Amino acid sequence: MKWRVSLKESDAAAVSALVEKTGFFSAQELRVAAELVEETLLHGNASGYEFVLADDPDRPGELLGYTCFGPIPATKSSFDLYWIAVSPSEQGKGIGTKLIQKTERMAKEMKATFMFVDTSGREQYTPTRAFYERMGYHVEARISDFYAPGDDKVVYGKRL
Amino acid sequence: MKWRVSLKESDAAAVSALVEKTGFFSAQELRVAAELVEETLLHGNASGYEFVLADDPDRPGELLGYTCFGPIPATKSSFDLYWIAVSPSEQGKGIGTKLIQKTERMAKEMKATFMFVDTSGREQYTPTRAFYERMGYHVEARISDFYAPGDDKVVYGKRL
Repeated sequence: MKWRVSLKESDAAAVSALVEKTGFFSAQELRVAAELVEETLLHGNASGYEFVLADDPDRPGELLGYTCFGPIPATKSSFDLYWIAVSPSEQGKGIGTKLIQKTERMAKEMKATFMFVDTSGREQYTPTRAFYERMGYHVEARISDFYAPGDDKVVYGKRL
Repeated sequence: MKWRVSLKESDAAAVSALVEKTGFFSAQELRVAAELVEETLLHGNASGYEFVLADDPDRPGELLGYTCFGPIPATKSSFDLYWIAVSPSEQGKGIGTKLIQKTERMAKEMKATFMFVDTSGREQYTPTRAFYERMGYHVEARISDFYAPGDDKVVYGKRL
Protein backbone atom coordinates (compact mmCIF):
# COMPACT_ATOMS: atom_id res chain seq x y z
CA MET A 1 0.00 0.00 0.00
CA LYS A 2 1.31 3.46 -0.93
CA TRP A 3 0.01 6.34 1.19
CA ARG A 4 0.00 9.98 0.14
CA VAL A 5 -1.24 13.23 1.64
CA SER A 6 -0.62 15.53 -1.31
CA LEU A 7 -2.88 15.53 -4.32
CA LYS A 8 -2.00 15.07 -7.97
CA GLU A 9 -3.98 16.11 -11.04
CA SER A 10 -5.40 12.63 -11.68
CA ASP A 11 -7.00 12.47 -8.22
CA ALA A 12 -10.23 14.30 -9.14
CA ALA A 13 -11.11 11.50 -11.58
CA ALA A 14 -9.68 8.81 -9.28
CA VAL A 15 -11.69 9.98 -6.26
CA SER A 16 -14.85 10.23 -8.32
CA ALA A 17 -14.34 6.68 -9.68
CA LEU A 18 -13.61 5.30 -6.20
CA VAL A 19 -16.62 7.00 -4.61
CA GLU A 20 -18.87 5.74 -7.43
CA LYS A 21 -17.57 2.18 -7.01
CA THR A 22 -18.73 2.08 -3.38
CA GLY A 23 -22.35 2.45 -4.56
CA PHE A 24 -23.18 4.68 -1.58
CA PHE A 25 -23.29 8.08 -3.25
CA SER A 26 -25.46 9.98 -5.74
CA ALA A 27 -24.23 11.63 -8.94
CA GLN A 28 -24.44 15.00 -7.15
CA GLU A 29 -22.25 13.67 -4.35
CA LEU A 30 -19.66 12.34 -6.84
CA ARG A 31 -19.41 15.85 -8.26
CA VAL A 32 -18.94 17.34 -4.78
CA ALA A 33 -16.20 14.80 -3.95
CA ALA A 34 -14.34 15.65 -7.18
CA GLU A 35 -14.84 19.41 -6.67
CA LEU A 36 -13.15 19.31 -3.25
CA VAL A 37 -10.11 17.73 -4.92
CA GLU A 38 -10.13 20.31 -7.72
CA GLU A 39 -10.50 23.21 -5.27
CA THR A 40 -7.57 21.94 -3.22
CA LEU A 41 -5.42 21.45 -6.34
CA LEU A 42 -6.18 25.08 -7.22
CA HIS A 43 -5.94 26.76 -3.83
CA GLY A 44 -3.81 24.39 -1.75
CA ASN A 45 -4.26 24.33 2.02
CA ALA A 46 -6.22 27.60 1.88
CA SER A 47 -9.14 25.52 0.59
CA GLY A 48 -9.55 24.06 4.10
CA TYR A 49 -9.42 20.46 2.85
CA GLU A 50 -6.81 17.82 3.66
CA PHE A 51 -6.50 14.36 2.14
CA VAL A 52 -5.12 10.94 2.92
CA LEU A 53 -4.95 8.70 -0.14
CA ALA A 54 -4.08 5.03 -0.64
CA ASP A 55 -2.73 4.33 -4.12
CA ASP A 56 -3.51 1.04 -5.85
CA PRO A 57 -0.05 -0.50 -6.35
CA ASP A 58 -1.32 -2.59 -9.28
CA ARG A 59 -3.26 0.13 -11.14
CA PRO A 60 -1.42 3.44 -11.47
CA GLY A 61 -3.79 6.42 -11.15
CA GLU A 62 -6.38 4.42 -9.19
CA LEU A 63 -7.12 4.66 -5.49
CA LEU A 64 -7.97 1.93 -2.96
CA GLY A 65 -9.25 4.44 -0.42
CA TYR A 66 -9.14 8.03 0.73
CA THR A 67 -10.31 10.52 3.30
CA CYS A 68 -11.04 14.23 2.94
CA PHE A 69 -11.17 16.25 6.15
CA GLY A 70 -10.45 19.67 7.57
CA PRO A 71 -11.13 22.30 10.20
CA ILE A 72 -14.80 23.29 10.53
CA PRO A 73 -15.08 27.03 9.82
CA ALA A 74 -16.07 29.15 12.84
CA THR A 75 -14.94 26.47 15.32
CA LYS A 76 -11.83 26.69 17.49
CA SER A 77 -10.44 23.20 16.89
CA SER A 78 -13.22 20.94 15.58
CA PHE A 79 -12.57 19.00 12.41
CA ASP A 80 -14.94 17.25 10.05
CA LEU A 81 -14.30 14.00 8.23
CA TYR A 82 -16.06 15.05 5.03
CA TRP A 83 -15.36 11.87 3.07
CA ILE A 84 -14.08 8.37 3.63
CA ALA A 85 -14.26 5.70 0.98
CA VAL A 86 -12.63 2.31 0.50
CA SER A 87 -12.84 0.31 -2.71
CA PRO A 88 -15.38 -2.54 -2.27
CA SER A 89 -12.76 -5.13 -3.30
CA GLU A 90 -10.49 -3.92 -0.45
CA GLN A 91 -13.04 -3.66 2.35
CA GLY A 92 -12.41 -5.76 5.45
CA LYS A 93 -8.62 -5.57 5.02
CA GLY A 94 -7.99 -2.76 7.48
CA ILE A 95 -7.61 0.07 4.97
CA GLY A 96 -10.46 2.05 6.55
CA THR A 97 -8.87 1.70 9.99
CA LYS A 98 -5.50 2.91 8.68
CA LEU A 99 -7.16 5.82 6.85
CA ILE A 100 -8.92 6.92 10.05
CA GLN A 101 -5.75 6.57 12.12
CA LYS A 102 -3.64 8.57 9.66
CA THR A 103 -6.41 11.17 9.35
CA GLU A 104 -6.71 11.60 13.12
CA ARG A 105 -2.92 11.86 13.46
CA MET A 106 -2.74 14.61 10.81
CA ALA A 107 -5.70 16.43 12.38
CA LYS A 108 -4.02 16.31 15.80
CA GLU A 109 -0.85 17.78 14.29
CA MET A 110 -3.11 20.61 13.09
CA LYS A 111 -4.33 21.10 16.72
CA ALA A 112 -7.69 19.40 16.24
CA THR A 113 -9.40 18.42 19.50
CA PHE A 114 -12.59 16.93 18.06
CA MET A 115 -13.37 15.00 14.88
CA PHE A 116 -16.95 14.85 13.62
CA VAL A 117 -18.45 12.74 10.89
CA ASP A 118 -22.02 12.76 9.62
CA THR A 119 -23.72 9.62 8.40
CA SER A 120 -27.18 8.31 7.67
CA GLY A 121 -29.40 6.41 10.09
CA ARG A 122 -30.60 4.14 7.26
CA GLU A 123 -30.22 0.34 7.35
CA GLN A 124 -27.71 0.48 4.47
CA TYR A 125 -25.32 2.42 6.74
CA THR A 126 -25.33 -0.04 9.66
CA PRO A 127 -21.80 -1.30 8.77
CA THR A 128 -20.64 2.32 8.41
CA ARG A 129 -21.95 3.26 11.85
CA ALA A 130 -20.46 0.07 13.37
CA PHE A 131 -17.11 1.02 11.81
CA TYR A 132 -17.14 4.50 13.39
CA GLU A 133 -18.09 2.98 16.75
CA ARG A 134 -15.15 0.53 16.53
CA MET A 135 -12.92 3.52 15.79
CA GLY A 136 -14.00 5.18 19.07
CA TYR A 137 -16.67 7.54 17.70
CA HIS A 138 -19.85 8.23 19.69
CA VAL A 139 -23.26 9.49 18.57
CA GLU A 140 -23.30 13.21 19.37
CA ALA A 141 -26.63 13.99 17.73
CA ARG A 142 -29.37 12.46 15.64
CA ILE A 143 -31.63 14.65 13.50
CA SER A 144 -34.83 12.95 12.33
CA ASP A 145 -35.73 13.12 8.63
CA PHE A 146 -32.71 15.32 7.88
CA TYR A 147 -31.68 13.76 4.56
CA ALA A 148 -35.23 12.79 3.59
CA PRO A 149 -38.39 11.54 5.29
CA GLY A 150 -37.27 8.40 7.16
CA ASP A 151 -33.57 9.18 6.61
CA ASP A 152 -32.00 10.61 9.76
CA LYS A 153 -28.63 12.31 10.05
CA VAL A 154 -26.43 10.75 12.72
CA VAL A 155 -23.50 12.88 13.87
CA TYR A 156 -20.57 10.93 15.32
CA GLY A 157 -17.77 12.60 17.22
CA LYS A 158 -14.49 11.64 18.84
CA ARG A 159 -12.29 13.69 21.14
CA LEU A 160 -8.75 13.49 19.82
CA MET B 1 -38.43 49.06 3.73
CA LYS B 2 -37.34 47.84 0.29
CA TRP B 3 -37.02 44.08 -0.09
CA ARG B 4 -34.97 42.33 -2.72
CA VAL B 5 -34.11 38.73 -3.55
CA SER B 6 -31.56 39.35 -6.30
CA LEU B 7 -28.05 40.48 -5.54
CA LYS B 8 -26.18 43.48 -6.87
CA GLU B 9 -22.42 44.08 -7.00
CA SER B 10 -22.37 46.29 -3.89
CA ASP B 11 -23.89 43.55 -1.71
CA ALA B 12 -20.61 41.76 -0.87
CA ALA B 13 -19.36 44.90 0.92
CA ALA B 14 -22.82 45.73 2.30
CA VAL B 15 -23.32 42.24 3.76
CA SER B 16 -19.84 42.27 5.28
CA ALA B 17 -20.48 45.71 6.87
CA LEU B 18 -23.88 44.62 8.20
CA VAL B 19 -22.56 41.36 9.65
CA GLU B 20 -19.66 43.22 11.28
CA LYS B 21 -22.04 45.78 12.81
CA THR B 22 -23.92 43.05 14.69
CA GLY B 23 -20.76 42.27 16.68
CA PHE B 24 -21.59 38.55 16.62
CA PHE B 25 -19.11 37.34 14.04
CA SER B 26 -15.36 36.90 13.64
CA ALA B 27 -13.24 38.33 10.81
CA GLN B 28 -13.16 34.84 9.25
CA GLU B 29 -16.95 34.70 9.34
CA LEU B 30 -17.23 38.14 7.70
CA ARG B 31 -15.11 36.82 4.84
CA VAL B 32 -17.34 33.74 4.49
CA ALA B 33 -20.50 35.89 4.43
CA ALA B 34 -19.03 38.09 1.68
CA GLU B 35 -17.75 35.07 -0.27
CA LEU B 36 -21.22 33.53 -0.47
CA VAL B 37 -22.45 36.78 -2.04
CA GLU B 38 -19.54 36.87 -4.49
CA GLU B 39 -19.99 33.22 -5.44
CA THR B 40 -23.68 33.78 -6.10
CA LEU B 41 -22.97 36.92 -8.16
CA LEU B 42 -20.58 34.80 -10.24
CA HIS B 43 -22.52 31.56 -10.57
CA GLY B 44 -26.16 32.56 -9.94
CA ASN B 45 -28.56 29.98 -8.57
CA ALA B 46 -26.09 27.18 -9.35
CA SER B 47 -24.15 28.35 -6.30
CA GLY B 48 -26.91 26.90 -4.10
CA TYR B 49 -27.40 30.15 -2.16
CA GLU B 50 -30.50 32.34 -2.07
CA PHE B 51 -30.85 35.75 -0.46
CA VAL B 52 -33.48 38.03 1.03
CA LEU B 53 -32.22 41.58 1.52
CA ALA B 54 -33.71 44.66 3.18
CA ASP B 55 -32.30 47.88 1.71
CA ASP B 56 -31.79 50.90 3.93
CA PRO B 57 -34.11 53.51 2.35
CA ASP B 58 -32.00 56.36 3.80
CA ARG B 59 -28.54 55.06 2.90
CA PRO B 60 -28.23 53.72 -0.66
CA GLY B 61 -25.94 50.69 -0.84
CA GLU B 62 -26.47 49.80 2.84
CA LEU B 63 -28.56 46.96 4.23
CA LEU B 64 -30.81 46.82 7.29
CA GLY B 65 -30.94 43.04 7.26
CA TYR B 66 -30.52 39.93 5.16
CA THR B 67 -30.73 36.17 5.06
CA CYS B 68 -28.71 33.67 3.07
CA PHE B 69 -30.18 30.19 2.73
CA GLY B 70 -30.39 27.24 0.37
CA PRO B 71 -30.88 23.53 -0.14
CA ILE B 72 -28.53 21.33 1.89
CA PRO B 73 -26.51 19.18 -0.54
CA ALA B 74 -27.28 15.44 -0.40
CA THR B 75 -30.69 16.03 1.23
CA LYS B 76 -34.04 15.59 -0.50
CA SER B 77 -35.71 18.82 0.62
CA SER B 78 -33.92 20.16 3.70
CA PHE B 79 -32.77 23.77 3.64
CA ASP B 80 -30.28 25.62 5.80
CA LEU B 81 -30.55 29.20 6.96
CA TYR B 82 -26.84 29.94 6.64
CA TRP B 83 -27.03 33.59 7.69
CA ILE B 84 -29.47 36.02 9.22
CA ALA B 85 -28.43 39.46 10.37
CA VAL B 86 -30.30 42.63 11.30
CA SER B 87 -28.62 45.98 11.86
CA PRO B 88 -28.41 46.66 15.64
CA SER B 89 -30.21 50.01 15.19
CA GLU B 90 -33.16 48.18 13.59
CA GLN B 91 -33.50 45.26 15.99
CA GLY B 92 -36.86 44.85 17.75
CA LYS B 93 -38.78 46.40 14.84
CA GLY B 94 -39.91 43.15 13.24
CA ILE B 95 -37.33 43.03 10.43
CA GLY B 96 -36.01 39.65 11.59
CA THR B 97 -39.53 38.21 11.63
CA LYS B 98 -40.22 39.49 8.11
CA LEU B 99 -36.86 38.16 6.89
CA ILE B 100 -37.66 34.69 8.28
CA GLN B 101 -41.18 34.73 6.83
CA LYS B 102 -39.99 35.76 3.38
CA THR B 103 -37.16 33.22 3.54
CA GLU B 104 -39.50 30.37 4.50
CA ARG B 105 -41.95 31.35 1.76
CA MET B 106 -39.19 31.31 -0.88
CA ALA B 107 -37.85 28.00 0.44
CA LYS B 108 -41.34 26.46 0.27
CA GLU B 109 -41.67 27.61 -3.33
CA MET B 110 -38.42 25.68 -3.91
CA LYS B 111 -40.08 22.55 -2.38
CA ALA B 112 -38.29 22.78 0.97
CA THR B 113 -39.91 20.69 3.72
CA PHE B 114 -37.49 21.46 6.55
CA MET B 115 -35.46 24.53 7.49
CA PHE B 116 -32.46 24.15 9.77
CA VAL B 117 -30.39 26.80 11.46
CA ASP B 118 -27.30 26.33 13.62
CA THR B 119 -26.54 28.59 16.52
CA SER B 120 -24.40 28.70 19.63
CA GLY B 121 -25.46 27.59 23.10
CA ARG B 122 -23.55 30.50 24.65
CA GLU B 123 -25.20 33.12 26.88
CA GLN B 124 -24.64 35.81 24.23
CA TYR B 125 -26.99 33.90 21.90
CA THR B 126 -29.95 33.63 24.31
CA PRO B 127 -31.92 36.32 22.40
CA THR B 128 -31.06 34.58 19.11
CA ARG B 129 -32.38 31.23 20.37
CA ALA B 130 -35.50 32.91 21.82
CA PHE B 131 -36.08 34.50 18.41
CA TYR B 132 -35.91 31.15 16.59
CA GLU B 133 -38.27 29.63 19.17
CA ARG B 134 -40.79 32.44 18.62
CA MET B 135 -40.54 31.76 14.89
CA GLY B 136 -41.60 28.12 15.49
CA TYR B 137 -38.17 26.47 15.46
CA HIS B 138 -37.38 23.56 17.80
CA VAL B 139 -34.07 22.21 19.07
CA GLU B 140 -33.26 19.21 16.90
CA ALA B 141 -29.79 18.55 18.29
CA ARG B 142 -27.20 19.94 20.66
CA ILE B 143 -23.52 19.05 20.24
CA SER B 144 -21.38 19.79 23.29
CA ASP B 145 -18.15 21.77 22.80
CA PHE B 146 -18.65 21.89 19.03
CA TYR B 147 -17.50 25.46 18.42
CA ALA B 148 -15.00 25.46 21.29
CA PRO B 149 -14.75 24.06 24.80
CA GLY B 150 -17.90 25.32 26.56
CA ASP B 151 -19.46 26.50 23.29
CA ASP B 152 -22.12 24.04 22.11
CA LYS B 153 -23.76 23.95 18.71
CA VAL B 154 -27.56 24.04 18.90
CA VAL B 155 -29.37 22.95 15.75
CA TYR B 156 -32.87 24.36 15.34
CA GLY B 157 -35.33 23.02 12.80
CA LYS B 158 -38.81 23.79 11.55
CA ARG B 159 -41.02 21.71 9.28
CA LEU B 160 -42.31 23.99 6.53
